[in-house]
Amino acid sequence: MRTVSVFDTTLRDGEQTPGVAFPLNYKIQIAKQLDKLGVDVIEAGFPAASKGEFEAVKTIANLGLSSKICALARIVKYDIDAALDSEADMVHIFISTSKIQIEHTIQKSREEIVRLAVDAVEYIKDHGRICMFSAMDATRTEIDYLKQIYKAVEDAGVDIINVPDTVGVATPFKFYDLIKELREHLNVPIDVHCHNDFGLAVANTYAAVLAGADEVQVTVNGIGERAGNAALEEVVMTLHGLEGIKTNIKTEYLVETSKLIERFSGIKVPPNKPIVGANAFSHESGIHAHGVLKDARTFEPGVITPEMVGHKRRIVIGKHAGRHQIKKILEDAGYQVDEERLTKIMEKVKELGDKGKKVTDLDLFAIAEVVLGELKKEEKAILVDEVTVLTGNRITPTAVINAEVEGKKKVTSAIGVGPVDAALNAVKELAGESMRIKLTEFRMDAITGGSDALAEVYVTVEDDEGNSFTARGAGADIVMASIEAVIHAVNYLMLMKKKKKHD
Amino acid sequence: MRTVSVFDTTLRDGEQTPGVAFPLNYKIQIAKQLDKLGVDVIEAGFPAASKGEFEAVKTIANLGLSSKICALARIVKYDIDAALDSEADMVHIFISTSKIQIEHTIQKSREEIVRLAVDAVEYIKDHGRICMFSAMDATRTEIDYLKQIYKAVEDAGVDIINVPDTVGVATPFKFYDLIKELREHLNVPIDVHCHNDFGLAVANTYAAVLAGADEVQVTVNGIGERAGNAALEEVVMTLHGLEGIKTNIKTEYLVETSKLIERFSGIKVPPNKPIVGANAFSHESGIHAHGVLKDARTFEPGVITPEMVGHKRRIVIGKHAGRHQIKKILEDAGYQVDEERLTKIMEKVKELGDKGKKVTDLDLFAIAEVVLGELKKEEKAILVDEVTVLTGNRITPTAVINAEVEGKKKVTSAIGVGPVDAALNAVKELAGESMRIKLTEFRMDAITGGSDALAEVYVTVEDDEGNSFTARGAGADIVMASIEAVIHAVNYLMLMKKKKKHD
Repeated sequence: MRTVSVFDTTLRDGEQTPGVAFPLNYKIQIAKQLDKLGVDVIEAGFPAASKGEFEAVKTIANLGLSSKICALARIVKYDIDAALDSEADMVHIFISTSKIQIEHTIQKSREEIVRLAVDAVEYIKDHGRICMFSAMDATRTEIDYLKQIYKAVEDAGVDIINVPDTVGVATPFKFYDLIKELREHLNVPIDVHCHNDFGLAVANTYAAVLAGADEVQVTVNGIGERAGNAALEEVVMTLHGLEGIKTNIKTEYLVETSKLIERFSGIKVPPNKPIVGANAFSHESGIHAHGVLKDARTFEPGVITPEMVGHKRRIVIGKHAGRHQIKKILEDAGYQVDEERLTKIMEKVKELGDKGKKVTDLDLFAIAEVVLGELKKEEKAILVDEVTVLTGNRITPTAVINAEVEGKKKVTSAIGVGPVDAALNAVKELAGESMRIKLTEFRMDAITGGSDALAEVYVTVEDDEGNSFTARGAGADIVMASIEAVIHAVNYLMLMKKKKKHD
Repeated sequence: MRTVSVFDTTLRDGEQTPGVAFPLNYKIQIAKQLDKLGVDVIEAGFPAASKGEFEAVKTIANLGLSSKICALARIVKYDIDAALDSEADMVHIFISTSKIQIEHTIQKSREEIVRLAVDAVEYIKDHGRICMFSAMDATRTEIDYLKQIYKAVEDAGVDIINVPDTVGVATPFKFYDLIKELREHLNVPIDVHCHNDFGLAVANTYAAVLAGADEVQVTVNGIGERAGNAALEEVVMTLHGLEGIKTNIKTEYLVETSKLIERFSGIKVPPNKPIVGANAFSHESGIHAHGVLKDARTFEPGVITPEMVGHKRRIVIGKHAGRHQIKKILEDAGYQVDEERLTKIMEKVKELGDKGKKVTDLDLFAIAEVVLGELKKEEKAILVDEVTVLTGNRITPTAVINAEVEGKKKVTSAIGVGPVDAALNAVKELAGESMRIKLTEFRMDAITGGSDALAEVYVTVEDDEGNSFTARGAGADIVMASIEAVIHAVNYLMLMKKKKKHD
């Protein structure tokens, strides 16, 4: 079975994403994660760019990873020396070869460019490093000149050439033909680097592999300049899942790796991102979800499973939800529903959907609890009476809560770094005697619109036995919405605990 | 020149995105926007799904738009009648044809399925509507059966057939071959519907057009079930920009349409989204941006421009920023910098970059202001002295601010729907006498982590002459971060106003 190498450039081209900059400790963690994921080469950076960048590449080159470490360099002595000094295993040199780039940037003759490229390859090989050569803007370069320069560096001893679609204008059919022609003309291994300006980067990379490319340049989550690069997870799963072509990627770490890059880059992975997005294996519509409950392959590609990429399947309750689906979700969560009550629950879900409300699993459980008999007043361990929260520039943020905790009047006050933090600390203290709780997650969806827009807060609370519950609070007052969510979670956990004791 | 039709299913498949539900007033606005954009067909919904959905399709069908309105229906009388009653121009019927879906969902014989499809087409044509037939899961259906059922509906008078890649397993080469084979076998127009499970939806749609498809099914921003559908903007620009194949889309409204769907669906468009993402025409790295400043085509596809799709080119200051780039941005913003000061500014930008800070245009201006002489104390119209903000369940959120406004001591208090709203209202009142301000935008990035995580707030303030300024505030206390941002924006606007008077 054919195996294709994976050259990851998240730390180099990925970091050139406008607004993204990884500090050294992030770079080290990313390099370790990429190594764990099984990428063959990590392009760690561009040592000549700055002192910080040089130190980062050098540090990563000395981590003792299994992945080879590559450093980028323009074809100028200063850059190449910096790359060599960084102790990377491999030096990736590049120079513009298209008419438009030569005219507007390097302004040299075509012959001079070939000579510079050949000299650079020889210099790097003399220093005993692996050498990769890129003809920048290859897909807009005349094919004869492209063949000439690649042949020249091959003769000079280059280890691998890269064919970059620098501005993302390739199409699968044209790129297939280009790689095929180069493959026939050259003996050296071929790597490709595709940009996503038209949304074709993954398809182009895949087409190049079919045409004989030996290695693919990718970034995690497809981050990179402009519309980014071919996404590692999409290219790898296309090859594995649709063509049976292998890579050395341990696919079960794809979601974990995606989340790390999302966090470090600040570039959110949209829910509809292939393979790693939150919805990649989620199902909403009634018809589809019914099929999925019987056999997931009915409405999923089937050739890959969520587990294969470290993901989970989710059934999301939508306005198109069918009875089957809602019943199954409720039963899976431990609710016993008869047909009459199910009809009532379904009506409420549809109503919310028609109003434009996003109905999540949590909403469904909330509806079910109302229909099946809600958390009654006497089931609530904490009954909040009065809440006051105070902040300012000369005041330590403070919250005071007056409540009945298991029948006893209680007042607590707590401070925090902000009003929300103070409020949550006060609730923690309030619950303190009956149950030690830990806030394991606090998440707020982004607010757009005005300062009076609705804030949605999600809070995950864990009790001392490790049970956890996620509750949502919503409202125009972010402080009150947070308190509401935590109190709800605590009451739920306390009730569960009590019920367990009785069992 | 060849023209391909665009069938938009944002309101149907797009709305099946887990968690997305458009209320009626959103649906109407979306339909109007799609009509303005020039889509040939709007699939408005699935009338049989619910009463609300039926009403929505009927309302849209009667808006008098130029786009044709289509309604979806399973091949059952109830669904088809609902679609007909909705007064849509076109009924889109579908039934499973792949082995796996037939077995697990409809459980009918292949012959029965063909008969049902033919009957449904005849029924719809008898009612004088346009009819589209989809063989659901076509790409996993045996080719002979697929040809048989499509031929049967063609003979029954169907107006157009749809070939859906329901679970996203097609590849450009295989899908090209499939469409080519169907094209040769059939006379009826062919439409395609591609899902993005492997990131290939746009490439597959493009491949189908090359193979002879007459129409493409797409969604704005590629929203839809699981990894979503082929993105309208990417498919259209690939055809226009890379193949010279036309559609009736007025491309200058692409970004505007994308933003509307982003807002209504709540599914954020990532910055690296092709064509419409914030970074699609942004440039960071020093080398590239220098080329772009000379001629944008050096590091952009060139075949399309930002203006063509209603976008703007941005130069973003990154850690790799060169002198040329920074000087140009500063001069464009009206700052006069000499070489010595430019060096100082560059050093600070690099420092921030190496620390992992995202350096935006605003940061650069802030740095420039420090280096070129910062907003001095006497230039600040508002000097905040004391802030107190109060909220709770029995208190109307209230903020009190003590400040010096243009030299005069002043105290204001204001209420709001929450503490942030109250605080911003207080600042508004504070500025009130000197300048009437309007908060045109309040945006907060999502918080993940704990309740003590840093909140980042962006506030856009507009003065009475229409000048606006966006300022950022950050801190663990969301209330104080918001106040800081607004005060900064107001001070900046007031200073600009004063400077103008002096000119």
